[in-house]
Amino acid sequence: MEKASEIEQEVIEIRRDFHAHPELGWLEMRTSALIAERLSELGYKVITGKKVCKEGTRMGVPDQKELDAHFHEIITKEKDNRSFSITEEMKEGYTGVIGILPCGQGPELVFRFDIDALPIKETAKESHVPVQKGFRSQYDGIMHACGHDCHAAIGLGVAKILTEVKKDLHGTIKLIFQPAEEGTRGASGIVEAGHLDNTDYFVAAHVSSPYEGMDTEWIPGSFGALATTKYTMIFTGKSAHAGRAPEDGRNAVLAAAHAAIGVTGISRHSEGMSRVNVGSIHGGTGRNIVADKAILTMEVRGETTKINEYMSKRACEVCKAAAAMEGCSCKIIKDGYAPSQISDDKLVSRIAYLVNREYPAYTIKEPLQVKNLDSEDVGFMMNQVQKQGGEATYMRFITNMKAPQHTSKFDVDEEVLKKGIVIFSAIAAEILGGLTQ
Amino acid sequence: MEKASEIEQEVIEIRRDFHAHPELGWLEMRTSALIAERLSELGYKVITGKKVCKEGTRMGVPDQKELDAHFHEIITKEKDNRSFSITEEMKEGYTGVIGILPCGQGPELVFRFDIDALPIKETAKESHVPVQKGFRSQYDGIMHACGHDCHAAIGLGVAKILTEVKKDLHGTIKLIFQPAEEGTRGASGIVEAGHLDNTDYFVAAHVSSPYEGMDTEWIPGSFGALATTKYTMIFTGKSAHAGRAPEDGRNAVLAAAHAAIGVTGISRHSEGMSRVNVGSIHGGTGRNIVADKAILTMEVRGETTKINEYMSKRACEVCKAAAAMEGCSCKIIKDGYAPSQISDDKLVSRIAYLVNREYPAYTIKEPLQVKNLDSEDVGFMMNQVQKQGGEATYMRFITNMKAPQHTSKFDVDEEVLKKGIVIFSAIAAEILGGLTQ
Amino acid sequence: MEKASEIEQEVIEIRRDFHAHPELGWLEMRTSALIAERLSELGYKVITGKKVCKEGTRMGVPDQKELDAHFHEIITKEKDNRSFSITEEMKEGYTGVIGILPCGQGPELVFRFDIDALPIKETAKESHVPVQKGFRSQYDGIMHACGHDCHAAIGLGVAKILTEVKKDLHGTIKLIFQPAEEGTRGASGIVEAGHLDNTDYFVAAHVSSPYEGMDTEWIPGSFGALATTKYTMIFTGKSAHAGRAPEDGRNAVLAAAHAAIGVTGISRHSEGMSRVNVGSIHGGTGRNIVADKAILTMEVRGETTKINEYMSKRACEVCKAAAAMEGCSCKIIKDGYAPSQISDDKLVSRIAYLVNREYPAYTIKEPLQVKNLDSEDVGFMMNQVQKQGGEATYMRFITNMKAPQHTSKFDVDEEVLKKGIVIFSAIAAEILGGLTQ
Amino acid sequence: MEKASEIEQEVIEIRRDFHAHPELGWLEMRTSALIAERLSELGYKVITGKKVCKEGTRMGVPDQKELDAHFHEIITKEKDNRSFSITEEMKEGYTGVIGILPCGQGPELVFRFDIDALPIKETAKESHVPVQKGFRSQYDGIMHACGHDCHAAIGLGVAKILTEVKKDLHGTIKLIFQPAEEGTRGASGIVEAGHLDNTDYFVAAHVSSPYEGMDTEWIPGSFGALATTKYTMIFTGKSAHAGRAPEDGRNAVLAAAHAAIGVTGISRHSEGMSRVNVGSIHGGTGRNIVADKAILTMEVRGETTKINEYMSKRACEVCKAAAAMEGCSCKIIKDGYAPSQISDDKLVSRIAYLVNREYPAYTIKEPLQVKNLDSEDVGFMMNQVQKQGGEATYMRFITNMKAPQHTSKFDVDEEVLKKGIVIFSAIAAEILGGLTQ
Repeated sequence: MEKASEIEQEVIEIRRDFHAHPELGWLEMRTSALIAERLSELGYKVITGKKVCKEGTRMGVPDQKELDAHFHEIITKEKDNRSFSITEEMKEGYTGVIGILPCGQGPELVFRFDIDALPIKETAKESHVPVQKGFRSQYDGIMHACGHDCHAAIGLGVAKILTEVKKDLHGTIKLIFQPAEEGTRGASGIVEAGHLDNTDYFVAAHVSSPYEGMDTEWIPGSFGALATTKYTMIFTGKSAHAGRAPEDGRNAVLAAAHAAIGVTGISRHSEGMSRVNVGSIHGGTGRNIVADKAILTMEVRGETTKINEYMSKRACEVCKAAAAMEGCSCKIIKDGYAPSQISDDKLVSRIAYLVNREYPAYTIKEPLQVKNLDSEDVGFMMNQVQKQGGEATYMRFITNMKAPQHTSKFDVDEEVLKKGIVIFSAIAAEILGGLTQ
Repeated sequence: MEKASEIEQEVIEIRRDFHAHPELGWLEMRTSALIAERLSELGYKVITGKKVCKEGTRMGVPDQKELDAHFHEIITKEKDNRSFSITEEMKEGYTGVIGILPCGQGPELVFRFDIDALPIKETAKESHVPVQKGFRSQYDGIMHACGHDCHAAIGLGVAKILTEVKKDLHGTIKLIFQPAEEGTRGASGIVEAGHLDNTDYFVAAHVSSPYEGMDTEWIPGSFGALATTKYTMIFTGKSAHAGRAPEDGRNAVLAAAHAAIGVTGISRHSEGMSRVNVGSIHGGTGRNIVADKAILTMEVRGETTKINEYMSKRACEVCKAAAAMEGCSCKIIKDGYAPSQISDDKLVSRIAYLVNREYPAYTIKEPLQVKNLDSEDVGFMMNQVQKQGGEATYMRFITNMKAPQHTSKFDVDEEVLKKGIVIFSAIAAEILGGLTQ
Repeated sequence: MEKASEIEQEVIEIRRDFHAHPELGWLEMRTSALIAERLSELGYKVITGKKVCKEGTRMGVPDQKELDAHFHEIITKEKDNRSFSITEEMKEGYTGVIGILPCGQGPELVFRFDIDALPIKETAKESHVPVQKGFRSQYDGIMHACGHDCHAAIGLGVAKILTEVKKDLHGTIKLIFQPAEEGTRGASGIVEAGHLDNTDYFVAAHVSSPYEGMDTEWIPGSFGALATTKYTMIFTGKSAHAGRAPEDGRNAVLAAAHAAIGVTGISRHSEGMSRVNVGSIHGGTGRNIVADKAILTMEVRGETTKINEYMSKRACEVCKAAAAMEGCSCKIIKDGYAPSQISDDKLVSRIAYLVNREYPAYTIKEPLQVKNLDSEDVGFMMNQVQKQGGEATYMRFITNMKAPQHTSKFDVDEEVLKKGIVIFSAIAAEILGGLTQ
Repeated sequence: MEKASEIEQEVIEIRRDFHAHPELGWLEMRTSALIAERLSELGYKVITGKKVCKEGTRMGVPDQKELDAHFHEIITKEKDNRSFSITEEMKEGYTGVIGILPCGQGPELVFRFDIDALPIKETAKESHVPVQKGFRSQYDGIMHACGHDCHAAIGLGVAKILTEVKKDLHGTIKLIFQPAEEGTRGASGIVEAGHLDNTDYFVAAHVSSPYEGMDTEWIPGSFGALATTKYTMIFTGKSAHAGRAPEDGRNAVLAAAHAAIGVTGISRHSEGMSRVNVGSIHGGTGRNIVADKAILTMEVRGETTKINEYMSKRACEVCKAAAAMEGCSCKIIKDGYAPSQISDDKLVSRIAYLVNREYPAYTIKEPLQVKNLDSEDVGFMMNQVQKQGGEATYMRFITNMKAPQHTSKFDVDEEVLKKGIVIFSAIAAEILGGLTQ
């Protein structure tokens, strides 16, 4: 706790810097470069670029033009010409950083922090704290509206503290700063690269608003989460003049419309909740042209991985057939995927007991686990660890939010940073302390 | 004209008998038996049964159960146990009759009369002439609401007169009493059996209500008609309990609904008018069961055969794909088909001139041809004749109707019978008279 | 147990008689007459006709023509001209019987037995026990395929036993023989008539196939059940000839198709499971006529009454708007409704303990309650009782079925009859025994 | 002809300047300024700004931001700082110019030239003549791909010649340089401003590719054209998180999809051809957000104004109802409208005879009029003139095109400029020559 207090101000500065420079998934070049730099300074073995996410496994990567444009924006907007070691691989969208701190013999403990932002324009109102204090987003239309700036800052705070207590730890610390959590695109590539293959304990966390009826500072576990798959469906038809030769056209806008309606009506699964949403539709050009192109972005979700797979399979069938109805074709792009997840009761209880004992200021009330109705690709990592016999949990750090996540006035109480650092550090001390296990 | 007057009363009786005993397409057993009997008496060579429509070519034939039920109804309802020579083949739905009158060397002249009725319940109101005069339909739910009873009666009247003037004719007379014109199901099988292969002149006619702005007794030709194809689309899915296991079902009702909407939206052809109509939809059983069966009846039409073929092709594609959207299959049954048609100007003018000269009472005004927005499978026969260099026309006999065709109060002025007989007979005398050609 | 054994054969005969004469909801004339007769003989106060279900509250009643036809069938098919006191009110569809046995001061205990059958044609295969033993359905297309014949027979068995132990009971017994459970149409009218207004304890039961992994003879409670609403949606447009004047038509088939697809795509509720099913669609006549009438039967369900109401509201909105899309109107008929339900833990445990102690042969394994994914209008009664502070439960009697419920080969092991009688009777003895409470 | 040859090179330069600076409808600021300047120099009375199109009558005007951006682009891209008198009203989108040349007593003769370009990116290939000769579009994504640059240049050529022959003319010449013909947005406002209220003769023309089987240099008239209405349909729903609270959302993307499918299926009119096309659809943001906004651009067309009105009415009904299906609202914006049109036979023949006689090099073959399957808002002007008893025609100047109109490689043979000037000038000489009428 003392150590956390010492670095609290520094971590707040880091968080504000990240907040002012939010980067979308696979574009976290500046963020990754700064994290890598910091971890290096602290003595971590640092992994970046193609070694973080296996080539060919990243989903929903922006095209190179967008990648270049963002790099250009970073350079242009950086005050004082502060320099970064943004690598060539980062410029290609290979973002994310892994820091490893070997502490001798013992279990491998992985902490995961996600680092990407959202395509939301941050409010410019004076009442908004980041405006008052001068750390509002400098990148127009991009915002850390989900709190990943805090996660990244907590991760760097934890990184520092762990180096200070290194001598008391026995095992391996691995800090994963994951790109592209939004859209559930980044985790699977890290798993596929093998970074979780020897993990004994895995802990991740998210800032969260208070739960109704639960006066608690944090929650050590969660279960459920909806498994999800994200798609882009590209419908291609044939353009024609709508007045002169409509019979020559094959209307991609209509194909996409049939698909949107069709997927929404997929018969639901009796074993639990499911979701389907067509988030956007874009197609066609001139009013008098039969459209030859239309694009849907959509997602399905399921209370279990099985239900999600049922929804996915049907969604793909419907889109293919809807295209055929209009004589069009449909290309299916899988942009993201996350399974459902369950925290291990044993690990949850152990962490709860530990923090209760060591830091009673961080009140915790039953239940120790909450149901998660969002989707999170942390499930990939948790499932991988559990498959090998390891234990995993996904915690919540409660903080008062000014507005809901994913909205333009979202803001947190920065006290959550210290809380996060304290709890993560305590877990490391407990798990690698060599005594209690 | 005199001869026609002599037999007018007899023909009226025949028409009333047909009207009282209306028979749907392929069920014209009683009608066919009576026509065959009459033509035999008059000395015609008579063709019935499988020799009329080639086996395997009939579209939309009722199943044997329905055929048997109708035969039973005929027997049951016939007053005085009047006997018919309804043949075994007729009982299988091989209805229709062809009568041939060889008159020596000369061209082959074909007259076509259609004989089937409609599934409409005839009104029982006292104001309806068939009720007043006692010849309302005795078969419940079936009615001669399109005037084919008149066509058949005219055909028998013409048959009689031609035998009386046979010595003045040079060539061959062929009278085709066609089954199943409704639904455009009967003509193609007759053509495929070869009955139009040596035809030089072809004439058919339909009773018609007066055309707006045209004070005319008859019209010697028509052009256009919409080519059409009739379909039954059978969607098969998989039933399941809608509460307990909806994911196991594949909903045929939804497949049919997507198909109905999809075909209605087929992009129209720039070269002319088209139509598409889903006439009926039936599917599903219990409210809590995912339906495994649904049936659409539909039709497409086109101003030209080419447009109709475009519409047909797209309709079939749409139905197949709509089935696939719901994981169902679609069986396509073609129930009827008719091409578009054009009367020959030369024949039309010749007939117009002839009737004008011989029977000036039958006023005729320009234009000599009218556009036909209905569909008629007579086009099959006309096209076949014209393909071989013959001439063909499709005439209109104008009559005041009490209500529109295909409605329950439809009725004609019986004067149209004499008019029809006079004009057909005059045409035979002109074409086979051996002088003017 | 002994008493039950004594009457077992008699109850089997009753069940087989009901099985051979299955009657659809609101048509249970013969069944009601026999039940009323039997209860009278046993000395119960008997309520029938309009006093059972309040006038104006019955949902989904067949029209009088259907009612008359069924009465005619009963009379026609009854062997030996066995006579029934089918009352005039029963002939109007006021079926159902309530028997009251006053046993002095004490609580009111209600048992409910449902008595209606399903529109399913019973198999005629020799392997089917009712065929072998001569009690296959004599009413074509109607079948007791859900076991309500057993429920009614158990009810009459319980009725007899209770009269024999009457002296030991303190309170009021009310046996409700409910009509029209299928389609969830009958219960609400009985509640609205006030029959549950003074009830302290309420018990109902259903025969059930074994639950996976649970080797148990019966289950004393259930929770959940999906709340449900049943609808008939009638779309009215305007007919027109599809070739000559399609613009004059307003296509009810298309309106129904849009509605079917639209309701299927209602956005689901985050608080729990929901269902929607369009069970059937019927519309249109001739292929060349724009259809002016189409009918959908559909149902929605929800894990809670709130979710079901959300689904209902949206379904009605969608159908109205779908009609408007095609210039049609939509009439909404509510054919059935059932809320969700929860058995009282306290009553469930009490019954479980009791049967365990008295009749250990009737094995019972945890859990004492099972989740109910069906819909049942018993919820109306249970909710009413619980609202007033009473306790209610809905039990399962396990029996090996030859085929699933609602299928043509469904059959039960008749041992379930004795089991049901024993358990119901034991409950009465416990609740009105005056000692244990 | 000689005069036309003299100015041919000058007109080619004008056309190339317009081609290099294409401007979309209501943005023709530079074009209008140059035309106004030129007409002034030639001595015409010039009308610009709000006097051209009546305020409140312009359809589909870009918002002021877009207007400003275009003005900025003009200024920025103009070489040599060439100055224009772009007025404040033009900057508000009041483009278009009318030039009046009073020539004493006599009829009023109106020529109309349209001046706007299309949102198409011109090819940069070397084979494209405008690339070779250096007059490719300088405004990215905008292109004169329909030949209106030629029309405007022809108009200025004609303007010059008429001043030279002014002394031989008797009456009033009015040259209308119409904005926003694409999307059929500009003509009605000019009519509503009264500029056609005293017109005796009206002539317009379009460059055209050769007609199949017709070896003709030009065609003096056209008939038909499809009446059309252009719409933007804005669907507004309610956004919600698709995972956490889908029931709170009202999905505008689905509303738009239902609308797109619904309008495509509007039952067609029996009196003639019709069209409907949903050209584009855009809606929604994030994949996990229920979309609260979606926009369709669409158009309907009809062979007659009546058919178009039927289609328009139904399209609006469908969109309103489709919105209601999803609990959304629909705002309907009418972006353009054009009636059908018919050239006057008498005027067509007179012009044909005249050109044949005077300029036999300009071959003309029967038919004198061609059917027009496009839509053109010139119909507004023609109908207005004809309503008052005047005569109107819409001509075609045939030219070999390198690629179809509305495509990126479209280009004309510049000889068409001289041909156009000759024919328009001849018509003026004929009509106002004071001799033949």
